[in-house]
Formats: sequence, structure tokens, C-alpha cells
Amino acid sequence: SKTYKIAILPGDGTGPEVIREGIKVIETAAEKNDFKLDFTDYDLGGKRYLKTGEILPDSVIEEFKKFDAMYLGAIGHPDVKPGILEKGILLKLRFELDQYINLRPVKLYPNVETPLKDKKSEDIDMVIVRENTEGLYTGAGGFLKKDTLQEVAIQESINTRFGVERCIRYAFKLTQNRAKNNKLTLCGKTNVLTYASDLWQRTFNVVAKEYPQLTSDYVNVDAACMWFVKNPEWFDVIVTDNLFGDIITDLAAMIQGGMGVAAGGNINPEGVSMFEPMGGSAPKYTGLNIINPIATINAGAMMLEIIGESKAAKDIDNAVIEALESGKIKSMSAGKMGLSTTEVGDLIASLLH
Amino acid sequence: SKTYKIAILPGDGTGPEVIREGIKVIETAAEKNDFKLDFTDYDLGGKRYLKTGEILPDSVIEEFKKFDAMYLGAIGHPDVKPGILEKGILLKLRFELDQYINLRPVKLYPNVETPLKDKKSEDIDMVIVRENTEGLYTGAGGFLKKDTLQEVAIQESINTRFGVERCIRYAFKLTQNRAKNNKLTLCGKTNVLTYASDLWQRTFNVVAKEYPQLTSDYVNVDAACMWFVKNPEWFDVIVTDNLFGDIITDLAAMIQGGMGVAAGGNINPEGVSMFEPMGGSAPKYTGLNIINPIATINAGAMMLEIIGESKAAKDIDNAVIEALESGKIKSMSAGKMGLSTTEVGDLIASLLH
Ligand SMILES: CC(C)[C@H](C(=O)O)[C@@H](O)C(=O)O
Ligand SMILES: CC(C)[C@H](C(=O)O)[C@@H](O)C(=O)O
Repeated sequence: SKTYKIAILPGDGTGPEVIREGIKVIETAAEKNDFKLDFTDYDLGGKRYLKTGEILPDSVIEEFKKFDAMYLGAIGHPDVKPGILEKGILLKLRFELDQYINLRPVKLYPNVETPLKDKKSEDIDMVIVRENTEGLYTGAGGFLKKDTLQEVAIQESINTRFGVERCIRYAFKLTQNRAKNNKLTLCGKTNVLTYASDLWQRTFNVVAKEYPQLTSDYVNVDAACMWFVKNPEWFDVIVTDNLFGDIITDLAAMIQGGMGVAAGGNINPEGVSMFEPMGGSAPKYTGLNIINPIATINAGAMMLEIIGESKAAKDIDNAVIEALESGKIKSMSAGKMGLSTTEVGDLIASLLH
Repeated sequence: SKTYKIAILPGDGTGPEVIREGIKVIETAAEKNDFKLDFTDYDLGGKRYLKTGEILPDSVIEEFKKFDAMYLGAIGHPDVKPGILEKGILLKLRFELDQYINLRPVKLYPNVETPLKDKKSEDIDMVIVRENTEGLYTGAGGFLKKDTLQEVAIQESINTRFGVERCIRYAFKLTQNRAKNNKLTLCGKTNVLTYASDLWQRTFNVVAKEYPQLTSDYVNVDAACMWFVKNPEWFDVIVTDNLFGDIITDLAAMIQGGMGVAAGGNINPEGVSMFEPMGGSAPKYTGLNIINPIATINAGAMMLEIIGESKAAKDIDNAVIEALESGKIKSMSAGKMGLSTTEVGDLIASLLH
């Protein structure tokens, strides 16, 4: 039977607690589906940084390249200045491992409460494909006359045809394999970003010609946010740039029921990919065993799907749905689940057939 | 009695229909409050462009400078390529008239339906102050190797201390004059936009020191979108850059009940300002007398407030609330109001005391 090498990054705060349940569920799914997972722990995060000053050594990045996938809990520590860990770990991994797709399935599971009125499970079911290595995330830019009244700050969005095209191609392929409407919507701001969004639009039109059976659509990012709360059922797959993707995936996470369920993948289709719950390290809940592990379990399922174990991924998804349908989990919010973190993990693992 | 010179830009589609009702209401308010409004019409928009090729002559911009305010219906025509009228009229006016504040009060009026569950009028009551002349809207950037596989597209966000500071100062002053929590929240993306958001953050901190009695807060733009749908009651006044402002004001418009009610002002506190409903020209409803004029009426009230007629502005706001409370307007959506555009305008005008 096949063995996959998985790097585990439990991280900070409640990260270790959710990753523990994630491992429990994916290991059970592996047993039932006759493959093996071989885990190696990495203690990256705020705790290590505060102790050693080390953020992410280059040698560790090289090690990651030898894994089949990476599984992350959460990075973020209240005693570390905002930006250091995000840029030093999360963004650095995306760039150095060329994880050029940020994949965010958005699905309203049964018995999960959305803040939106009158929306049912079938109304909220889309996938957002976010470019993950370019745009305003490159860090390009600078200051002129910093700290004077004449200061100018410039931030540059750098977009390459190569980077945009591979992302759009990924999105078209994904759309073709989806059951829903088979519609791919480009999200941009063409009437203002006359260079960046223009490149996206032209590249989108070129690739769209290869998929005449799919519907290609366009939406301005501001309008997309409106329709997410008013008519989420209009969307199937959405492709967008790094910053717009950051914004609309967080909004989407909220309409699907929040950080308790939202999972994401940082994907290099030709290399190693990293999977994570969208929530942060939630310091105030650390060690209380009350955080919701479902997002992390969903991220685990996505990981198995991407490494090629679709059946096991589907099994986990079904177990999550069954657990939610059972009504035993009262809420998606930390401390209000009616079950502990461990119990939610146990429940879902027990429903794997 | 005082006379104010108002430039009227009815524009395209349903623009003339809503502006007609707006004029009806502000004229009535002027009569009751003993001042005069002197209107001059300008036929800018898609229709004129298609007929004459003219978008916005420089001489017209010079004329606008002599008015006390400008009142816009809607710009946008299905036969004109997207971008031309937006850049050629709307953005050009903001830049040339240095309307450096985009002001968006967000209020859930009685009997107006929000797509959010369990939110009452008092939960949705904030003001967004958007910088309106800098950032990614400057049009700076370029292409390298355009239309080849090696193409690079760069879009630049240019931010000046001068531009950022005057916007932040405006927001602090406004916050001080509000009744609510007296909290000003800066919305940015400091962990990624290390130049642009950094200038905003530093400038915000400097000005905040002059307002020790106010609470200063910070939120990442992605998180702001989440909290808008989950906990809009957390916000009082928000200040942000041009692009983030574009996104969050549209989301905010939706949670306050949509384009039927959302109004905005493009403000030059030392010059001439322009007021408009947030909705577009809605071509398919043109001439049917079924579009909702309330957003335009709200924009009219904002205009009177800014030119110094606060009492008349307040009267209109009260009349709008009374009209909505009467239950005579069944919905905020075009065609579903139960009343015609004209009848809604008449109703609100009749409630001015
Ligand atoms: C932590 C932060 C840098 C990151 C981002 O902006 O991409 C996060 O918001 C995300 O979406 O994964
Ligand atoms: C029409 C468009 C250029 C404009 C903008 O992006 O600012 C609009 O969306 C707005 O918010 O007023």
C-alpha cells in the first residue's frame, strides 16, 4: 500500500488542537482506504520565533520540497508584531514553494448557520481560485521622503502573463470537472486597473476559447462582494488575483458559516501544496479544547483529494456532513459546539465507513 | 434669502427619472426652509458621447467650479465600452475637482430589508470615509512586452502623506461630530501592503494623538468584509483608501438594503462637491417610472447638509423615515415598490413640514 509523507505544522495557539483532530480523521480515512500517512512535525510559528529568533530557515523550505503535502494548524502569536510571521512564514512558503493557486471551496454544510437570510445549502456552493504568488503581494514598492510631510508611498501590483495564465488554466480545468453550472467568473476591476485587470481579462479571453462549452463571465470585485451576500447562488467557480482573492475568500468564509468550517489549500500542482483552516490561532481559546476542528478536517480532506486519494477525501466529506446532520454539534463557534474539540474529531472519525 | 447654484447631471438610463424626484424633494425642502436652489442642467453621459463623441470638455469642468454643488443621476450606457465613461466622467471629475473624500453613510432605514439575519436598524449605522483621488486609482503603471507570453503588467498604488492626512483628518473630525461610539477604524492591509498601508497607519497614528477622546481602531480589509456581514454593529466611522473603499462601500450598500437607498458624496471640503445615488443607470428600467428614487433623495439631503443647510437635510431624512415607516413602499427594488418613482417622490415631498 502507498505511503504519503506529510509535513505537519501545528503552529500557534489552537493550531495544535485542531491539527490533532485533523490527523485523527485523515489517519482513520487512510486506514479504511488502505494507504499510509507518514507525518513529520515542524514547530514553525510565533513560539519558536520568540524563543530562538528563527522564523523559517531556508533549509526547512528545502526539506518541505520532499513531502507529498503540508498540513498547517495556524500561525500567529499575540506577542509578535503583525506582519513578521505572515510575511516570514505564510507568504514566504507560498512564494518559495511556488504554491500559485489558493483554492477555497465555499459550501454551506447542513445545520451550519449563515448570517444571510433565506439561503439554503444549495445556494452557497462555489469555489474561489485565487492567484497566490503575484499582484500586490510581491512586496514591490517603496517610499520617497519617508516620515516627512512630502512622503510618497508606492505599492506595486506585478502581474505576469505566465502567472496569470497558469492560474486561469487551473480554474478552467476545475470548472470543467465541477457538477454545478459550469461557469467560470473572472473577478477584477477592469474599469480602474487598466493594466493589471486588463492583462487578466485578455488572458482569460484567450483561454476561454479553449473551453467553448463553459460559460465565461466577468464581475467587478465591488459587485462580487454585493452579490455574495445577496445572490451567492449566481456563482460557480471564480478566478481572481491575489488581493481581490484575499478579500472575497474571507467574505465567502463568513457566508458559509465562518472560520469553524472554512478550509483552504495553497497549491503547487507540480510541487508540494499546503492545506490549512482559514481561522487564525485564536490565542484566547488555547488549551481549552473548545475550538472547532471541522475547518482543519475539511483541509485534511482537500489534502487527500489533491495528493490523489479522492475516495478517502469524499469519505471525510460525507462523515462531516453526517456529523452535522446528526444535530450533535450545536454551533460552529468555539465554546458553543456542545462538544469538545476532541469529541467533534472522534465523532467525525467514527462516521468513516 | 440665500440662493445656491446647483449643477444637475441627470445622465443616462434611469438617471433623469431619479434626479427629477430628487429635485422635487430638495426644492420643497428649500421652500420650507427659506432658501433657493438655482439649477443648471448638463447632459453629460453615454447618450451625448454616442451622439457627439464628447465625454467631458475641460471648459465644462471649469464651469462646475462656479457651482455650490453638483447633483448626479447616473452615468453608464450599454452601448459604450466599459471604462470610457467611468474614467472619462466620474473619475475625471473626482480628480479634476479634487473631490478627495468619498463619503458613504450606511444606515438601515425602517422597513428596509437587509440580506443579513437578525440585524435591526440600530445595528447598521456607520459612515465610510474613502480617499477619492489617490492609491490604485491614479492610473499609474504600464505594460512590458504586451500581448506576448512574456508580458508583465504593473499597476501602481500612489499614496501621498498630504493626500492620506487630509482624508484621515476629515474622518477624525466627522467621528467627533457623530453621536454613536465615537470610534474611528482604519481599514487597510498592513501585513501585506508594507508601503501603502504603512503610510496610512503612521499618518493615522499621528492624527489620532490629536483626538485622545476618540477610540482609534484598525481592521484588515478582508476581516472588515467578514465583520460587515457578521457584526456590522461593531463599526462607527471607517476610513480607508480608494480601492478598499470602493469594495467595502459596495458591500455596505448591500447590507443597508441595496442600491435603492445607498447615497454617496464626492466631496471637496474647500471646493465643489458632487452627490449621487450609488446605483447605476439601470438601462432595462429606463422610462418605466418604477426605479427607486430614495437613494437620490438621500444624496440630495447629503448635498444640502454639506452646503450648510443642515435643517433642510434633517427634514428630508425625517420625511424619508416617515415615508418608509408608513409601510406604503413595499420594497426597495425597482418594479416592486408598490408605488411609481413619481409617487415615492411625491410621498416624501408631502411629508416635509
Ligand atoms: C495572513 C495573511 C498574510 C494572508 C493573506 O493576506 O493572504 C491571509 O489573510 C490569507 O488569506 O491566507
Ligand atoms: C464607476 C467606478 C469607476 C466607481 C469606482 O470604482 O470608484 C464606482 O464603483 C464607485 O464606487 O463610485
